[in-house]
Amino acid sequence: MEVPVIRNLLEANDTIARQLRGLFRARGILALNLISSPGAGKTSLLERTLSDLKGEFRMAVIEGDLQTDNDARRVAATGAQAVQINTGGGCHLDGAMVLESLTALDLDKVDILFIENVGNLVCPVEFDCGEDHKIALLSVTEGDDKPEKYPLLFNLSKVMVLNKIDLLPYVDFSTERAERFARRLNAELLILPLSCRSGEGLEAWYDWLRQARAAKKA
Amino acid sequence: MEVPVIRNLLEANDTIARQLRGLFRARGILALNLISSPGAGKTSLLERTLSDLKGEFRMAVIEGDLQTDNDARRVAATGAQAVQINTGGGCHLDGAMVLESLTALDLDKVDILFIENVGNLVCPVEFDCGEDHKIALLSVTEGDDKPEKYPLLFNLSKVMVLNKIDLLPYVDFSTERAERFARRLNAELLILPLSCRSGEGLEAWYDWLRQARAAKKA
Repeated sequence: MEVPVIRNLLEANDTIARQLRGLFRARGILALNLISSPGAGKTSLLERTLSDLKGEFRMAVIEGDLQTDNDARRVAATGAQAVQINTGGGCHLDGAMVLESLTALDLDKVDILFIENVGNLVCPVEFDCGEDHKIALLSVTEGDDKPEKYPLLFNLSKVMVLNKIDLLPYVDFSTERAERFARRLNAELLILPLSCRSGEGLEAWYDWLRQARAAKKA
Repeated sequence: MEVPVIRNLLEANDTIARQLRGLFRARGILALNLISSPGAGKTSLLERTLSDLKGEFRMAVIEGDLQTDNDARRVAATGAQAVQINTGGGCHLDGAMVLESLTALDLDKVDILFIENVGNLVCPVEFDCGEDHKIALLSVTEGDDKPEKYPLLFNLSKVMVLNKIDLLPYVDFSTERAERFARRLNAELLILPLSCRSGEGLEAWYDWLRQARAAKKA
């Protein structure tokens, strides 16, 4: 009984995702879908990025959370356009939610659109939101076994941001082990170790954003 | 179309959960469902608990993961009975999975059964596994806003283990704020700050286990 429903749900989502992808392409908007565990630092990475690249790109954020508009308020404080989606109990964003939330943004003033998904390493991975790339965030406090245990995200992502490296001296985390597992799933994965707190490594993330945005415009 | 399917799914699960609860009651087994983000320290808490209380209780663990049997091997190394459920892509454990996994355990030799759910703050909360209590784990590296952002888990849990307190000096986390949000959702919630790494606070967790197990037997 359930299987056909799930399949139709994903098929319906893929139709909307294609529509979104066309819309982003037509406008030259780079769309990135940020996925991680709760508390890995998605919002912190966006706060830093929106502040530091403010003079370079026009950026907007779609925030996905079960409840609260805390994160939209945090990123809007940088001056970026922001819209909050509350999923109620829903464990992921989907194409329809993203499509609807676009009506709250002025897309003529967007070079890069960040979609901050619900904090969850499993369900968001299956629902295409029309993004150019999925960005996986893993923080070093979560353990180096996470790519092996949640493989689909790391398999489908373009970049793995390894966050909170300022905490490496205080936790048992082997960067080499995490990278090895992640690369086994995805040989092309770009791994960017950084700390949103200290700022270390952010420049490499910004360089990647510049390249990805340039590739999108061309 | 989907709503009735989801309802039937949850109803079917509740039927199995009642069956499990009767089975645990008849045998005086205390069953605990551990739920947290990936990497919050569920397996580490179990490793410590299984080692430290080995002489006091006969304990067993059902490990839930998308992939790998790493966690079952970690807890089995303490000498406890352990069984691994691999959900494939599935984002939570349910009653049927737990019921099936029980066939791999000798229940005559179990005082406390730990069910370590898939790392996910959303989906596992909705699926009753027949447990006496849900135990929420939150680590201080995830941020003090998590109870507010993922309310259902904290609303339905008996205990919130606040893990990794050895890292408090290195992160921006207000214990007072996390506790205030959690208590607003659940005035009766027992909050146990501890560190599986340093061992600080573990004795209070063990005391709670002793009381909960004694209440179950009586």
